[in-house]
Amino acid sequence: MWMSLDGFIAGPDDDVGRGLGRGGERLHASLEDEHGEAGSHRPPGPSGEIFDEAMATGAVVVGRRTFDLAGRWNGDHHGVPIFVPTRGKPPAPASALVNYVTDGVESAMSQAKQAAGDANVLVHGADLARSCLRAGVLDELEIGLVHVLLGGGRPLFVDLARQTELELIRVVDAPGVTYLRFRVMA
Amino acid sequence: MWMSLDGFIAGPDDDVGRGLGRGGERLHASLEDEHGEAGSHRPPGPSGEIFDEAMATGAVVVGRRTFDLAGRWNGDHHGVPIFVPTRGKPPAPASALVNYVTDGVESAMSQAKQAAGDANVLVHGADLARSCLRAGVLDELEIGLVHVLLGGGRPLFVDLARQTELELIRVVDAPGVTYLRFRVMA
Repeated sequence: MWMSLDGFIAGPDDDVGRGLGRGGERLHASLEDEHGEAGSHRPPGPSGEIFDEAMATGAVVVGRRTFDLAGRWNGDHHGVPIFVPTRGKPPAPASALVNYVTDGVESAMSQAKQAAGDANVLVHGADLARSCLRAGVLDELEIGLVHVLLGGGRPLFVDLARQTELELIRVVDAPGVTYLRFRVMA
Repeated sequence: MWMSLDGFIAGPDDDVGRGLGRGGERLHASLEDEHGEAGSHRPPGPSGEIFDEAMATGAVVVGRRTFDLAGRWNGDHHGVPIFVPTRGKPPAPASALVNYVTDGVESAMSQAKQAAGDANVLVHGADLARSCLRAGVLDELEIGLVHVLLGGGRPLFVDLARQTELELIRVVDAPGVTYLRFRVMA
């Protein structure tokens, strides 16, 4: 996740068609390719390696809100199975890759890990990341710390309500962003 | 400032005699010397270099609340002039080094920079750091990003309400903490 130094992963008023909120595109500036497009193509430089790693994951778990804000990726995120923890009656899946999971975050993550095999699982969405942290099913955090104070928006870490020790296992310096990979400890 | 990955510079319920709040000592663990004491002695390793830099500053500007929580340092912080922006009638200074400044943060910082000469000015206190940011008188941020999610407490960056670009100018890796020095841009 790309997070400003003041802890935001989107600007204010994020909604359908403006998933990053007002001014939130700033957070993904390091992902822009030569055409100024972010997210769909491999960016140049060290951010490209991070992008490659995300694209090498074997499954995706995504929060329902994030999934909907992203137009459900038209049913496809780099061709791997997608697991969407959801409450209530799920909609019809947009493709055979999409699995709505109604029995909780732990179950969604367990199914995703099984589907991914030896590959990692990509977790998408701030609410989901926090739920995974609370449930103890998040193994690592990859934070792209963006060199900006955004001033407001959607925070990544709120209401965790308990202390979690982290072990820094990798630092990648890129222009405008420092990638910090942490192992989540007990 | 030492800040957890989730943005806290003290635990909950910080008060006189417990300036770091409940569980907040975790944030200064990297500052502990061989006797387990934090703050008053030079810690070992790379954190020692950061400590040395703080002790090489030529003046201190400190928020009134932080100053009081810290017992006003008995009137002395590494022997340099101390400037305390304050509202209303200031108390009697604890020593000749202490200067209460009643005409604002800009004035306090201006006096501190003059007193420091070629040396840097040390800024103490989260509220004050934010006021300095808003007033445009903060040149650099040195963040000791502590490898922990604290879960709650006193945040460093809240209600900034405007975007501020930063330039990363130095990274120092230390056990349990990554020091990130940023230049504050326009």
